[in-house]
Amino acid sequence: MARRSGRRPGDSGTRDAIRTAAGRQFAEQGYDRTSMRSIAGEAGVDPALVAHFFGTKHELFVDVVELPFDPGQVLPVIFAGDRQHVGRRLADFLLTALENPEARRRMTGLIRAAASEPQAARMVRELIAREVFARIIDALDVDDADLRAGLLSSQVVGLVMARYILEVEPLASLPPGQAAAAIAPTLQRYLTEPLDDT
Amino acid sequence: MARRSGRRPGDSGTRDAIRTAAGRQFAEQGYDRTSMRSIAGEAGVDPALVAHFFGTKHELFVDVVELPFDPGQVLPVIFAGDRQHVGRRLADFLLTALENPEARRRMTGLIRAAASEPQAARMVRELIAREVFARIIDALDVDDADLRAGLLSSQVVGLVMARYILEVEPLASLPPGQAAAAIAPTLQRYLTEPLDDT
Repeated sequence: MARRSGRRPGDSGTRDAIRTAAGRQFAEQGYDRTSMRSIAGEAGVDPALVAHFFGTKHELFVDVVELPFDPGQVLPVIFAGDRQHVGRRLADFLLTALENPEARRRMTGLIRAAASEPQAARMVRELIAREVFARIIDALDVDDADLRAGLLSSQVVGLVMARYILEVEPLASLPPGQAAAAIAPTLQRYLTEPLDDT
Repeated sequence: MARRSGRRPGDSGTRDAIRTAAGRQFAEQGYDRTSMRSIAGEAGVDPALVAHFFGTKHELFVDVVELPFDPGQVLPVIFAGDRQHVGRRLADFLLTALENPEARRRMTGLIRAAASEPQAARMVRELIAREVFARIIDALDVDDADLRAGLLSSQVVGLVMARYILEVEPLASLPPGQAAAAIAPTLQRYLTEPLDDT
């Protein structure tokens, strides 16, 4: 976990203690059963200090999980245009964001951890259910929202695996715009189109 | 690596030595640069004995990698019908095969290993390039064959991650036929349809 510099000498130690406690509790108990109070208790600080340093529980979660990008940035981009092209805009956003080496490191780290550690898998499930994908689908007001979030995550996680971890060619070397064009119809279908093939 | 019973006491030790050597060489050097002779050399046996126990280099590869199913079984199933439904038949085959606990264990094991070990990732790349997906695409005679194999693998690997490793609900609990129906149009597009969104 990366250290952050605080203004006073004691700050960074306190922040680290909060982040460590939060990381453990989110992973072991899940998001719902973790509270600012329980995190503060484990870190040995006042709950108000947790809020002072990190804001809401949601913001602390996003901080601890080291997301590759700020979920708050995705929605305005995805919905800046017509409904028929949300898949393409989401694909473009993801592939462009992952050109940044730090974003890519975080994304592959998250998926590698989720593949081997049940606690990290639980964190990623929470992310999928609460963050980017679920929020986009909620905003689209479609049926089968949870299934759509799962299918969307299957293609995005799979793309990260194939392109950045397995490095399957030529997919791994494809310019981001071309890779985005190739998966965009899949994302569009999972976002807005009927799911049943029959 | 599972032991196999041989007819003579020395057989299983020899088989194990060959499989260990083959596994190491396929992982470190890749399929092309590994030969029956180089495997036999490392295992300290005659190349003819390798062929006697395991058949061809290809058969030895499939044995060592512990594939979740025999690639030879997939093609007849996929092509037992019209071209417009190869995606559905592939999805049905995969989801049905993965209902078998041993097949699922092998598939998730392969993907977990590939996510964390570069050598396992290389093995999976070889599999994607040579086995199931590439063979199906070759048989379909379409353009961009390698990119299609990569995209196909991205959705299949991602589905295995989401359904069996991350266990995202309701995708994880969906009956295999429904899960197959949900991803079939994606597989169909990667197999036979134009890839460019624009």
